[in-house]
Amino acid sequence: MANREIEILCIGNELLIGKIMNTNASWLAKKATFLGMIVKRITVVMDDLEEIGKALHEILLRHPHFIIITGGLGPTFDDKTLEGIAKALDRKWEVNEEALAMVRQKLYSFVKERRLEKLEMTPPRLKMAKLPRDASPLHNPVGTAPGVILEVDSTVLIALPGVPSEMEAIFEESVVPMLKKVAGKASFIEASLFAREIGESKIAPLIDKVMRENPDIYIKSHPKLEGNNESLLELHFSTTAKEAKRAKNRLSKAMMQLSELIKENEGKVKTAKTQ
Amino acid sequence: MANREIEILCIGNELLIGKIMNTNASWLAKKATFLGMIVKRITVVMDDLEEIGKALHEILLRHPHFIIITGGLGPTFDDKTLEGIAKALDRKWEVNEEALAMVRQKLYSFVKERRLEKLEMTPPRLKMAKLPRDASPLHNPVGTAPGVILEVDSTVLIALPGVPSEMEAIFEESVVPMLKKVAGKASFIEASLFAREIGESKIAPLIDKVMRENPDIYIKSHPKLEGNNESLLELHFSTTAKEAKRAKNRLSKAMMQLSELIKENEGKVKTAKTQ
Repeated sequence: MANREIEILCIGNELLIGKIMNTNASWLAKKATFLGMIVKRITVVMDDLEEIGKALHEILLRHPHFIIITGGLGPTFDDKTLEGIAKALDRKWEVNEEALAMVRQKLYSFVKERRLEKLEMTPPRLKMAKLPRDASPLHNPVGTAPGVILEVDSTVLIALPGVPSEMEAIFEESVVPMLKKVAGKASFIEASLFAREIGESKIAPLIDKVMRENPDIYIKSHPKLEGNNESLLELHFSTTAKEAKRAKNRLSKAMMQLSELIKENEGKVKTAKTQ
Repeated sequence: MANREIEILCIGNELLIGKIMNTNASWLAKKATFLGMIVKRITVVMDDLEEIGKALHEILLRHPHFIIITGGLGPTFDDKTLEGIAKALDRKWEVNEEALAMVRQKLYSFVKERRLEKLEMTPPRLKMAKLPRDASPLHNPVGTAPGVILEVDSTVLIALPGVPSEMEAIFEESVVPMLKKVAGKASFIEASLFAREIGESKIAPLIDKVMRENPDIYIKSHPKLEGNNESLLELHFSTTAKEAKRAKNRLSKAMMQLSELIKENEGKVKTAKTQ
């Protein structure tokens, strides 16, 4: 099977001061996983050329198939992603004609839409069309700054804006087809059981047993509190298989097994909720 | 000033498949920042001994003062954090008497509280008292698994459970005092201006000017949409200073300057909202 590994690199001081929740990372992780890819790592660094470069080099050494980078593509001085990538890869950071046409097209639409006189191609606007050499722009259906794609050996590097609506739109339009091609029919599937009146320590050996007998199934327990303050244990099952049907069968079998074991150990199993 | 750098390492497949939002990372980042620390990087890896070890080695090479690790301290097989740390540091992973006393104490309370007969010290329960050699447990006011602290050269490594209520309680009780000691009176402060009728590209050179003249202030623009679909630009100001008063004065000065510049450029500034 092709290398289905992805890493996510998020750039932005706002994430490191806890001003903003990293919803982009979890959105991307979920999307990529459900498309059959394996998200190996998420990294968050500052808006800083050196930090971006160091993180990028480290990720490239791990040879994922894709690196999805979010944030830092806008017009302001602190949008440093593309300059950082160019520097790290020792490529020129220069105006890309195709990207320039995309930015121009957006300005033209804004002028028309808002009945303005004209919008000049100022240096901050021009900056959004500056790409590392040999990169290509990805159409942004929502905002001005295009996404960017470039290849480094066997790794495909994709940079997306940090604004969630723009990031998601470019991902859906341009990235999903690429991931589908790599993942093929690989299918990720998940479901949960909820156990009561049995603690995590008591259930641990039961999970071990079921995982040993179902080597392709991953089971993870998450302790929760119910409204009445009773403890509840979510048992989350997941698997990736070459076909959806095989994945489903595998999952049902393992869930049934664990369910039985819990009942034998005097625990109660709440109706399974498939997500 | 002391090395105020922190890195956060989150361990959990659930974060990499997008099942769960990484609220722990943003909670910790915010707390540490407001205590005057600098969060340099957030890393998320799988529940995998090798992945945990590799990430830990990479972070140690960057010599932060603190590494805060979340997740993977529980009784189940997929809770691999402490074994991973022990392996990576080439230390034994063994029962710690102090940690064992803490786990015992919790079991005793559960038995009493729920009027159970007895709770055996099973292997999964014992696992929560297994620490890397020369580590110490941190009291968990909420759950069973203690937090863990150990030193590696000049870096303090702190492992906290992934369950948010437990993570937060141990952090507040045991970690906050340590960070305060390192940060001293260092004070982080932030506030935002909201600009309308002026685009991000037009405002970029104004931000540049104010940041050049106020080198300790960091300004970041975040485009937003208002309810009426008008675009709004949040201008987020932040700074860290040795005293709170100095930080406040700096921030006000820079905010006033940018406010004036925006008005001169025909933009509107909405009432500043201090956060």
